[in-house]
Amino acid sequence: MKYFIDNLIEKIEVKNSRICVGLDPHLNLMPTSILDPELLKNIEANHREIAAAILEFNQEIITAVADHTAVVKPQMAFYEKLGTAGMEALWETIYYAREKGLLILLDGKRNDIGSTAKAYAEAYLNIDSGADSLTINPYLGRDGITPFLEDKTKGAFALLKTSNPSSGDIQDLKLANGKKVYEEVALFLGRTAEKYKGQSGYSNLAAVVGATYPRELAQLRTLTPSLFFLIPGYGAQGGGAEDVKAAFDKEGRGAVINSSRGINFAYRKDEYKEFGAKNFADAAALAAKKMKEDINSVLDL
Amino acid sequence: MKYFIDNLIEKIEVKNSRICVGLDPHLNLMPTSILDPELLKNIEANHREIAAAILEFNQEIITAVADHTAVVKPQMAFYEKLGTAGMEALWETIYYAREKGLLILLDGKRNDIGSTAKAYAEAYLNIDSGADSLTINPYLGRDGITPFLEDKTKGAFALLKTSNPSSGDIQDLKLANGKKVYEEVALFLGRTAEKYKGQSGYSNLAAVVGATYPRELAQLRTLTPSLFFLIPGYGAQGGGAEDVKAAFDKEGRGAVINSSRGINFAYRKDEYKEFGAKNFADAAALAAKKMKEDINSVLDL
Repeated sequence: MKYFIDNLIEKIEVKNSRICVGLDPHLNLMPTSILDPELLKNIEANHREIAAAILEFNQEIITAVADHTAVVKPQMAFYEKLGTAGMEALWETIYYAREKGLLILLDGKRNDIGSTAKAYAEAYLNIDSGADSLTINPYLGRDGITPFLEDKTKGAFALLKTSNPSSGDIQDLKLANGKKVYEEVALFLGRTAEKYKGQSGYSNLAAVVGATYPRELAQLRTLTPSLFFLIPGYGAQGGGAEDVKAAFDKEGRGAVINSSRGINFAYRKDEYKEFGAKNFADAAALAAKKMKEDINSVLDL
Repeated sequence: MKYFIDNLIEKIEVKNSRICVGLDPHLNLMPTSILDPELLKNIEANHREIAAAILEFNQEIITAVADHTAVVKPQMAFYEKLGTAGMEALWETIYYAREKGLLILLDGKRNDIGSTAKAYAEAYLNIDSGADSLTINPYLGRDGITPFLEDKTKGAFALLKTSNPSSGDIQDLKLANGKKVYEEVALFLGRTAEKYKGQSGYSNLAAVVGATYPRELAQLRTLTPSLFFLIPGYGAQGGGAEDVKAAFDKEGRGAVINSSRGINFAYRKDEYKEFGAKNFADAAALAAKKMKEDINSVLDL
């Protein structure tokens, strides 16, 4: 069986695209042709119709971006918010993306003690219907991480240096050895990752590093050569292609850059307004293509 | 509106019980009268029947322990594992426990950047059908925590020093100021908690500290007087009443001690075998009563 990470890297190279398209269905940003704003006046009562609209939206986005990305990343909170109907839309979204040949990085940031982490892995990384990989939180240490890595065809992306403004509250605390917490977390993840390395030299244990901290990103690429990075924070959160360039190795491997709102809701931006809300998927396709080319343009490929 | 934490403390004192009953439906520990082991041969195909069995089991446990506890704690992973049918069983369990007058601490350890944390809060701490509180992971810092505290009638329990063997990998790293990471996380949570304090002096921002680390527990009680503690690790994980005594203040307030397997599956222990598997709920009631008395016996009440 092929390692998850080798499969991901292969698909990235086939498409020559180092982007990841987030599927974060912000209800108040959806085109009215898909989601009738009247339904939002009572979300609880209309959760089935809203969940159905989300699925339709996702399917159109996935079809539109499938040529330009190897991987999509649904953010679980937006589906969990709509209860079981939302979770059904999530599973259908995963199924649809798999059919289109895309890999699925499920963004759930799950974490718990070993026996419970195993239950989460069984829930979301099962062979038949699950995602290909899941984001996790490393605060519990090694025995909260390894249960997500038992199946070599699946991967886990551990939070390392997150993109949000207050990520430094804990992650930037200064340690007695002169390092910061996130650096020591990086080394810890790097050690844990050794056992899960594929032929590519990268590991099924990957990490999340925000594009909003380009200095740390460059440093972490050098510090942990076997950790593949998921990089959120491009676009809406403020990061640009030059900010993420250092995340890639000399072969242009080692990272995918995520954009969610910037692609999903491109139709709302001045730059794409000629498309109109009804053609939101065409706007998303062009935004994904442009982002793919933007990232590639800063690499020496 | 009454603060979540004041409500919790009041219910604890009415019942004179400082325990929390975890609702962790381990499928292979369930009585055969509730769950036909044949169903487990194909969990995917039988997930609806299995979820229905879980709900029935939980309802019997809740009825049995309602006199002996103020709060129950469903561990989300065990429900998420069964897909949308499992999540329906979780929501029905929450509804049933509310009807019995119990508070619900939903153990999901959710965490994300601010806008997504808000979506999780909307998913699980909504006024009408949600839980009363949710466990969260503090690794993202302040803006990943405060969205869970916007509604004063709801609470959040942030991981602080977890009960698992490798909790020290990150939490025990030594800082430049001589403290360990978990101590600095405690002070950070204490500062964040100030704004959310109820009349009891405790805050709606609470913390999770494992019974398996009694020295750290005693130290944290002194370090952060406004943080109420959820203490897992009593019983199956090895902690005893003497280990958790220091978690309480002079009035016997400040903590609830959780047990899941030790109560849910008491019928499997030699001590309770006279009950038989069919009377698992009676065994659970007695185990909860004994645990309540065990904790109270070490306090000067």
